[in-house]
Amino acid sequence: MAVNLPSPDINSILPIAGIRWGSVYAGIRKKTHDDLSVLLIDDSAKDACVAGVFTQNACCAAPVQISKRHLAHGKPRALLINAGCANAATGEAGMADALATCEEVASSASLADRNAVLPFSTGVILERLPMDKMRAGIASAVIQAQLLPCLEDASHDANAYALHCQAWLKASSAIMTTDTIAKIRSARRGAIVATGIAKGAGMIHPNMATMLGFVATQAKVSPLLLRELTREIADLSFNAITIDGDTSTNDSFVVIATGKGQGTLIDSAQHPDYLPLRECLLTVAEHLAQSIVRDGEGATKFVTIRVENAATVQEAMQVADKIALSPLVKTAFFASDPNLGRILAAIGNAGVVGLDFSKVGLKIGEVVVAEQGGRAIHYNATEEKKVLGIMQAPEFSLTVNLGRGSAFTNKYTCDYSYDYIKINAEYRT
Amino acid sequence: MAVNLPSPDINSILPIAGIRWGSVYAGIRKKTHDDLSVLLIDDSAKDACVAGVFTQNACCAAPVQISKRHLAHGKPRALLINAGCANAATGEAGMADALATCEEVASSASLADRNAVLPFSTGVILERLPMDKMRAGIASAVIQAQLLPCLEDASHDANAYALHCQAWLKASSAIMTTDTIAKIRSARRGAIVATGIAKGAGMIHPNMATMLGFVATQAKVSPLLLRELTREIADLSFNAITIDGDTSTNDSFVVIATGKGQGTLIDSAQHPDYLPLRECLLTVAEHLAQSIVRDGEGATKFVTIRVENAATVQEAMQVADKIALSPLVKTAFFASDPNLGRILAAIGNAGVVGLDFSKVGLKIGEVVVAEQGGRAIHYNATEEKKVLGIMQAPEFSLTVNLGRGSAFTNKYTCDYSYDYIKINAEYRT
Repeated sequence: MAVNLPSPDINSILPIAGIRWGSVYAGIRKKTHDDLSVLLIDDSAKDACVAGVFTQNACCAAPVQISKRHLAHGKPRALLINAGCANAATGEAGMADALATCEEVASSASLADRNAVLPFSTGVILERLPMDKMRAGIASAVIQAQLLPCLEDASHDANAYALHCQAWLKASSAIMTTDTIAKIRSARRGAIVATGIAKGAGMIHPNMATMLGFVATQAKVSPLLLRELTREIADLSFNAITIDGDTSTNDSFVVIATGKGQGTLIDSAQHPDYLPLRECLLTVAEHLAQSIVRDGEGATKFVTIRVENAATVQEAMQVADKIALSPLVKTAFFASDPNLGRILAAIGNAGVVGLDFSKVGLKIGEVVVAEQGGRAIHYNATEEKKVLGIMQAPEFSLTVNLGRGSAFTNKYTCDYSYDYIKINAEYRT
Repeated sequence: MAVNLPSPDINSILPIAGIRWGSVYAGIRKKTHDDLSVLLIDDSAKDACVAGVFTQNACCAAPVQISKRHLAHGKPRALLINAGCANAATGEAGMADALATCEEVASSASLADRNAVLPFSTGVILERLPMDKMRAGIASAVIQAQLLPCLEDASHDANAYALHCQAWLKASSAIMTTDTIAKIRSARRGAIVATGIAKGAGMIHPNMATMLGFVATQAKVSPLLLRELTREIADLSFNAITIDGDTSTNDSFVVIATGKGQGTLIDSAQHPDYLPLRECLLTVAEHLAQSIVRDGEGATKFVTIRVENAATVQEAMQVADKIALSPLVKTAFFASDPNLGRILAAIGNAGVVGLDFSKVGLKIGEVVVAEQGGRAIHYNATEEKKVLGIMQAPEFSLTVNLGRGSAFTNKYTCDYSYDYIKINAEYRT
């Protein structure tokens, strides 16, 4: 069902020096499929640093609260990710469970203390973690990771390289929930390399929604710059997508810079490696985020909504969100129906203060369908047929012209099909 | 498909002295079904006054702009309503069309000028009104209305009474678009009588969404008090419902007080007839608004969402809206799935500043399912079975306890079913 999203190709994966993945089936979810992964930062990666952005849902899961705390006060050396149980809305008991899993990773991997571990969970809300299974799974996953040879940058050890590619692929698959296809992407610019994995499907919306994304690079980056970059890249990738506007309790996007690369420390935008680094991270994050939309629950279309000539980026985002989240617009996408009325009504609904609707224009693909707030003069039956053809393709774009300024934004979304209802009406029961 | 919404019963209609309805098939929509109505206020109703509230969509239809203007500057003596074409996003030409229809009503009904006519349109957006059909329909509908005998308050003319009941019923049916059942309701409190009709279905959300509501009473009411009452009642009825969060370009709610009743002028809340009047209008408007939800596109459940112990009504409404509009919650309603996680996540998403999630509680029906931000301690498999039974019924309620104050709100909504997608993917094409 995914829209133009091929299965991952192991040959396109670029492993990252300084980290090792271990993934196992711990039995947390019903399906017999890997459901627990551990990422270890090699001891030799002394300059490694980690940054993250997290869900803004007030019903914020225990692992998210702990990851935030450990990121702020500890020096992360390991990530723990489980699928099948989100450990959200589980109160004090859930917090204790999450801390106990950190301890388990720390002791299995001989880390200084549990503060060095960032825990992540995805799956059903309100259920406690099955701690026996978690413990056994953690012990096993840490062993898997430790069995991998440490990888040095620009290593020519073909065997180690191949094992690491496999480990990345396994991790990308172990974190899936309702995803139908694993999401993984690498990018290289000169000496800089980045690779990331993500999971998503439903509940995807700005502010990070049941979405996990983990990206690693071997570059040496200062903690401050990594934090800034991570936030900026999240806004341009994971925060620019929306499926149904529900944001989850567990969403997290984490970037690890292992510092195992050859270059000097990148600590400002003036460093010659800054732009290659930013491009690598952005390429990976954009691809992963858009893959999540392509694999949206029941999605049959991938739609880019561009809002131009807004007074501010903020209002451009408001308008793009309103269109992307309108169930009437999304069902019209599903039907390949150039229903201008619904799109214009959504623009009118976005709450842009003082919007002069007589200046609003709209393109579908490259066809001008509306101008001056109404149907474009030349938009006749022939043109409508052209637009129908554009919308019947699995990918197309809308461009809104607000006629107010020069700010713009892009938003990526999908349609609502029968299968969206089917998947979400049947997910839990 | 409508949820617990019987067809209108002509014997329950109480006609209103001082107004006459005429409805005809003008051929504006494809289906052979009445699609144009005119309401005339009798010349003898010299003290009649009219109040209205309108859509807040910036893409506001021509008839809405003109109705607002005529309400502010004219003395309304007639309403014109057509289904099949919304005359929205039609620019200057659409404004001229709408004004021309007002002129047509004014000349057909011998009114002073076009400012005495309030026009309303519902149907497809971006299409021009078919003016030849409109003109012929208006002439015919005005004749229909004029053929009705004028009704005096407490009249015992059984024939006139029956003809008026029929005229109300015809009007309730003529304004329908995707509605499956006509919506009409009367109420009486002592000497005060009110009757109203409405249309709705999809695109229903606070701030008035593709929704038309017209209520009339024979009470004598001062213009100022009628304006206040209309706004207050709209908030408690039409603004308390939501289907899909899309608000339309044409929504209008109008209250007419003909002043043909026996009592003295009601000009303040201290008047002895004020409470009976308010109760009549509220009963009618609440029934009509809730009927719109029951007849929501593809609706199989009618759900009341009550948010209690909020710090402000505003935040209670924010939370109720977020739950009522979450596609994940709405699909869980469809599946009768007590998916607490999705509901709690929606509460967490509502953007309530400083919400202490450990104080949040939730009831489904009368069963406490969540407390202190997590699953209620006694909520076991037996209880869950009970909740499943509650949710399998066509009507049930959720009650959210925010644990912050004493403000509350009620919101009425429905589920998302396969048919929601089907109806909206196929409406236009």
